[in-house]
This record gives sequence, C-alpha cells and structure tokens, in this order.
Amino acid sequence: MTVRLGLIGTGTVGGGCLDILRNHKDEFRRHYGVDLEVVRVCSREPEVARSFGFADVFTSDYREVVTDPNVDLVIELIGGTTVAHDAVCEALRNGKAVVTANKALMATAGEEVFSLAEEHGVEVAFEASVGGGIPIIDPLKHSLIANRISKVMGIVNGTTNYMLTRMDEEGASYEEALADAQARGFAEADPSADVDGLDAAAKIAILSSIAFNSRVNLSDVHAEGIRNITTTDLQTARDMGYCVKLMAIGHRTDDGVDVRVHPTMIPLSHQMAKVNGVYNAIYVVGDAVGETMFFGEGAGAGPAASAVMGDVLEVARHIETGVTSFVGCTCTDSLPIVPMDDLETKYYIRFPVADRPGVLASMAGIFADFGVSIYSVVQRGQKEAGTVEVVYVTHVARERDIRAVVAKIASLDDVLHSEPSIIRVED
Amino acid sequence: MTVRLGLIGTGTVGGGCLDILRNHKDEFRRHYGVDLEVVRVCSREPEVARSFGFADVFTSDYREVVTDPNVDLVIELIGGTTVAHDAVCEALRNGKAVVTANKALMATAGEEVFSLAEEHGVEVAFEASVGGGIPIIDPLKHSLIANRISKVMGIVNGTTNYMLTRMDEEGASYEEALADAQARGFAEADPSADVDGLDAAAKIAILSSIAFNSRVNLSDVHAEGIRNITTTDLQTARDMGYCVKLMAIGHRTDDGVDVRVHPTMIPLSHQMAKVNGVYNAIYVVGDAVGETMFFGEGAGAGPAASAVMGDVLEVARHIETGVTSFVGCTCTDSLPIVPMDDLETKYYIRFPVADRPGVLASMAGIFADFGVSIYSVVQRGQKEAGTVEVVYVTHVARERDIRAVVAKIASLDDVLHSEPSIIRVED
Repeated sequence: MTVRLGLIGTGTVGGGCLDILRNHKDEFRRHYGVDLEVVRVCSREPEVARSFGFADVFTSDYREVVTDPNVDLVIELIGGTTVAHDAVCEALRNGKAVVTANKALMATAGEEVFSLAEEHGVEVAFEASVGGGIPIIDPLKHSLIANRISKVMGIVNGTTNYMLTRMDEEGASYEEALADAQARGFAEADPSADVDGLDAAAKIAILSSIAFNSRVNLSDVHAEGIRNITTTDLQTARDMGYCVKLMAIGHRTDDGVDVRVHPTMIPLSHQMAKVNGVYNAIYVVGDAVGETMFFGEGAGAGPAASAVMGDVLEVARHIETGVTSFVGCTCTDSLPIVPMDDLETKYYIRFPVADRPGVLASMAGIFADFGVSIYSVVQRGQKEAGTVEVVYVTHVARERDIRAVVAKIASLDDVLHSEPSIIRVED
Repeated sequence: MTVRLGLIGTGTVGGGCLDILRNHKDEFRRHYGVDLEVVRVCSREPEVARSFGFADVFTSDYREVVTDPNVDLVIELIGGTTVAHDAVCEALRNGKAVVTANKALMATAGEEVFSLAEEHGVEVAFEASVGGGIPIIDPLKHSLIANRISKVMGIVNGTTNYMLTRMDEEGASYEEALADAQARGFAEADPSADVDGLDAAAKIAILSSIAFNSRVNLSDVHAEGIRNITTTDLQTARDMGYCVKLMAIGHRTDDGVDVRVHPTMIPLSHQMAKVNGVYNAIYVVGDAVGETMFFGEGAGAGPAASAVMGDVLEVARHIETGVTSFVGCTCTDSLPIVPMDDLETKYYIRFPVADRPGVLASMAGIFADFGVSIYSVVQRGQKEAGTVEVVYVTHVARERDIRAVVAKIASLDDVLHSEPSIIRVED
C-alpha cells in the first residue's frame, strides 16, 4: 500500500521535506515498510514544485489538496492561523491525517484541531512545531508519561538565542545582533514574533499542554522579549555568575500552571547556559526521571523537515497498518493558569535614569514602599551625558510589587530615560 | 479493560516501578485510559513484594509469572543473560508482551528476542536498557527515522563518568574514585562491567543496531575501560583543551559500522564535555536533523523506572486498543562491522617508562618505524623513583600501527613500568 501525501507549502521546510523524500524513499520502504508518494503539491511558487519534479501535481489552491480523494495525509507548512487553519480543519473534516509544523495554529486552535481529528478518526502530528528537529513532543507523549512533570523549560527561539549569544560573546549591540540575524535569514524583516517572545510563547503553550495534561493557549502565556536587553545586562549577569537567555517556562505549582516567556538569568554552571547560537534545548523535570534535556538545532530546512517527515512516517505506518487508536489530545485535566502577578522570584532591573541628586534616594524609597527587599544595587558610570544606569537585584519578590515599583519610578518627573530592563533570576 | 502485569525482579528498578504505579495509577487511567494491575510478582526477596502489598501474588519462581494465563505483560528486571533470557523468551512464547531494562540480553540475544516476539505477535520494549530515564530508543525508532544517522555517541555509563568527574574535578586517584563510587552504590563490588567498558559496549550495540538499521551484537564492539586512566591524563587533557570521557561510539562509514567504547578526549567546548557525574548523554547526528543530544540521569530507581513504566504504558495502550502492528526489529540491513584495526584517529598515549638515557630515543624510533607521526611529546617529571611519564599525541594514525608501536615498546627490556594509557582524540 502507498500512503499518498498532499503537501501545502514549499518554502524552506517544504523543500527540506521533498529533499528527504527524494533521498530516502527507498530506505523508508525497506526499513519501515512505508511507501510514500506525493500526489499533490500546493505552493505560491510553482517553480519550486516544478524544480522537484511535481509540476504535474501542482496547484496554487490548497482546497484542491484537502478535498482530493487521492490524498491520505496532508502536510501543512504554510504557517499562520488563517489559511493554514482552514486547510488543516478542512483536511481533517475530509478524513485526512494531518502533519503540521504550525506552532501558532496548535497554540491557538489546538482544541478545535484535536476535536475535529477525533470526530473524523484521523491523526494529527506536530513534532516540528517546537524545537525544530529535536524530538520533544513525542517523548512527552510517550516515553515520559509515567512521570508527573513539574517543569518544562526551554530555549525554543533560535533567532533570539543567536542574538543574545552574539551580544554576549562579541559585545554586539542589540541593533547589530538583529541586523546580523536578519542578514543570515534567522530573523524576519519584522522581527517582532521572535524578539517579543511570541514565537516562544506559542511553543511553551504547546509543551505545557502536553506536559501538564491541561490545555494552555497562547493567550495564557505571559510573554516578554529581549528588546530592552543591552550588553550591560549581559556583562553584569556574567559578573554575577549568570547568563541571560530568553527562556520559555512552564511550571506546575500547587495553584495551577504558570507559563511565561521572558529574559532569564540562569547560572553559568547550568546545562542550558551552554546552549548557544541557533541551538535550542528543552529541559523537562519529572518526579521519576529527574532532570532531562533535549538539545539540537531549532530551525532550518533540515531539522524542521526531519521532524515533519518523522511524523509523516509514523502517521503513514498507522494508515498502512490500519491503526486507529493513536494518541490524540492528552489535555484531560483543566488546571487553572496562575496569574503572572503572583510569580515570586528574584529580579534584576536596570533603570537608565537621570544623573542628578535625589534620584537614587527616591528610587530606594519606592522599593521600600512596596516591600521589595534589595539584594544589591550598583550604579554604573554614564553611558550618555546626563544618564546613569542603576542596577538592582532583589531578594525573592512578588511580580505585582515589582511592577508597581517600576510603574511608580516611571511616573516620576524626568527620572526614567528609557525602558528599564527586567530579567527574572532562576537559580 | 485492565492490562495485567507480571513483574520479575523487585530490586532498585522494580521497586521504583511499584512506586510509580502506587503514585500514578489513577492518573494513568485518567490521562491515557490505561488501567494497570500487578497480578504476579516474582522476587528473591519476598519481604519487598510484601512491603508493596503484593504478598498474595508473590512467587519466587519466574515460571509462575511467564506461564500465568492472567498475565498480559511481563516486566523483566533481573538482568543478565541466563534466567532473564529464559524468562523473556518463555514469556514471548506464551504470547505475553515484554518490557525489559536488560541491556546485556538485548545486546547478545536481540535477534532471538525479536524473532520470538514477531512469531508470537507480541511487543518487546526496552527503553530502560540504555541511558536510564533518557528517552533515546523511542526517538531513534520514531521521531528521527526520516534521517540517515551517521553517528550515535554517548556517555552511557554513569559509574565511570562519576569516577572520571571526581578524578578530574577533585584530583582523586582512580582507586579513591572507585571506592567512593562503590560506597555510594554506583559501582558493584566487582566493578569490571563498568570500568572495563562492557556495560557501555552493550548499550552502544543496542543504539547502533537501531540507528543504522543493522544488527550490532555485544561481541562486535571493541571495548576498553578506564583502569589505566590517571589524574595525569586528565590534567594533560585539560591543558590541551580537552576532557576525558568514556565514550561509546557508533559510526557509519563507507565500509560499514564502526562501534567501540574507549576513553576519549573531547574538546572542552563540546556539549558532551559538560556532562558530569552520574549523568548520561547521547549525541545523535543525522543528515537532516544535524546534531542532537539527549541528556539525563543514567541510573537510579526513578530514572530507570520512568523508562520501564513509559514502555509499560505504551505497550498497555496497544494491548488495550488491539494494536498489533507496533514497531519491532528495525535491523533490515546487514552492514559489515569495520575492524578496530582500521580506525584512523589521533591518539594520546602516556607511557610510564624507565628514567634512563636512551629510552626516549628508542621510543621515538619505534613511532617512526611504524610511520606514526607525532604531534607533541612531553616528558613529565618523576612520580616514582626511576620512572618518568612520557606523553605522546599523534597526528591522525591507524589503530593497527598504534598497537604495533605499543606492543613493540612493551617488548623492550625494562622500559615500560606499567600499562600505558591510550586515549583516542575526537575533534
């Protein structure tokens, strides 16, 4: 039996999938008894389909893929939550299995996608939506299920990790690091999905949903990005024995699940501190397994296509052998989302403030007013005329108090010269 | 439906499994629809079975488990290749699924076990046989199958990694590190399976078989241990920018598969260099995914039981839902084993030799005679009266030439004072 594929999207990842198929089709048959054939290719770029030899099955309309009775399995690689949403849902309604790399879709419409899949008795797989080629969704849904997972935490955005690594290792400014990432194709012209933490937020929503057996949507995730991080922050962190990473953190607490993305200081001795450049790593803590980490390339044609085609082979095996009882939605609990305001941790805050008498005193007073206890305060020399940088590290404090402190300082007349940099400290 | 378990072995890992079941039985039912019941427990220690409340289903005879018509799934946790072999094979012959943590069995009788399983239409799972709680067998059999794997390499023996870490970080001698590992229960009274690399050899045989789709048995693996490693080696390595790890390496070459275990220098900048203590890590390189690494605790009740019970849940899901087309043996190719003699790499060799004129010259002559080109040679000051340590680092050389050099030097009258330390260098 041949499993017939309909591919929607022939960009970087789609091209990578077609490369894998071209190179390994025979091995897939020999090793796994899976015979794959691409019977429909949808793209905005007909020349790409043509270059892979699929001119005769090309279409520019996704509907022709998801309604084609010859298609058993739809691979959705266009991303986003509009056309992709319709393509995936229509494919499922038509009884086709779906493999997708679409983190935004799974993090916003996961419940709908799973219900449709269940209703129509077909499988949905999305390993490539998190961590590029790193197997993490499959281990969370299979190998690690004997555990109660207390934490899943990762460096899941390669673009920002590349930028922070360049800033840390070479002293590049944020703007230089961003321009470099854009020149290398790691960052989009509009980088906000990466640098504002939204890409990472979608990924940690997906991982948390699986790890904690409870649906976490993108809108449940508190996301902060790296726009306010400077080399001063990275250098100060290093002096304190830490490095700064954009961490996506899902944490099961007594009150529910606490899911967030923000710049985070982690000790230089931690395994995740060595995850540099475009690499990703996901750290999982379970009650039996203890600490585990999954590391690899988080983006790029090869890694993402490895994950997509791994899913395709697995789903195709099920189709070929008539398996209909695959693992679908695992969100069988409904845990509350812990409000970000309730977070308790240590904070690093750098304020670029006016260089004049009384400023330090009034800031210190505000910290005291909100009951935030200071571990250290350092005033760094001037960077610009009239501005000094004051760096506070707090003892464990509450998020709501920190926000009140920052808001209050921001409200002072002519004190705060630009956005403060707030970094949570994880020990 | 309830899946009925027969447990053979209630040692550390068996106890860990019973702990997990006791703590999470309800969640397993709720999250995964899997209802597990232990209906038979075989142990040499009736009091352990009793302490877990299984006195009424206790037996000291494994045959009563593997022949019990009420048992659906046998968990084999006694280890070794004698009784365990019979227990596993008889269970399979009686149509029972098997979950085992037995690396020695899978690395020596894997083919027999898989044939029996296939013949009787039942599943065998063995995630816990390699890397403790780290999911690695499942990712290799599922998520990563779209890749042609070129290399699988790991720190897979926690005992020796703990010893090497102590020697490296604290300057402990081999003997002190071993005594400490024994005192902490990481090493057996007879430590040879660990320190001679046999445990790691079984594990890399299993990983290579899966990664390369070609059977590699324990006897195919060249294994060297860490008995000759001293703190001098570790210090010299560090000065060179390397650390020393007992690496298990499976490598697909143009000539076949090259599988070996030996002390290895890896650059301090490599992700694996930071894997210390009893932690394990497995590094996989595939043509699409690039470099990935799986990290976690390699031993202990919790991690191993996490892997065993993950398998149990997965197999039980298949039993409950009537899935009979699970992934069995994936060794569909028959690649030749590359002889160790053909290995080409760089070598570090430390010779403890007689401190008298002419020794250095004759050693240098022997290296030249066999065409081995030297990168550096350092003579370290005396450790014992009359003995000096001469450390060679070669350019890329052939194993057979290195062995000839070492044999020739060993044959010189009164030159070599104790076993040389040979460490391959991986860049």
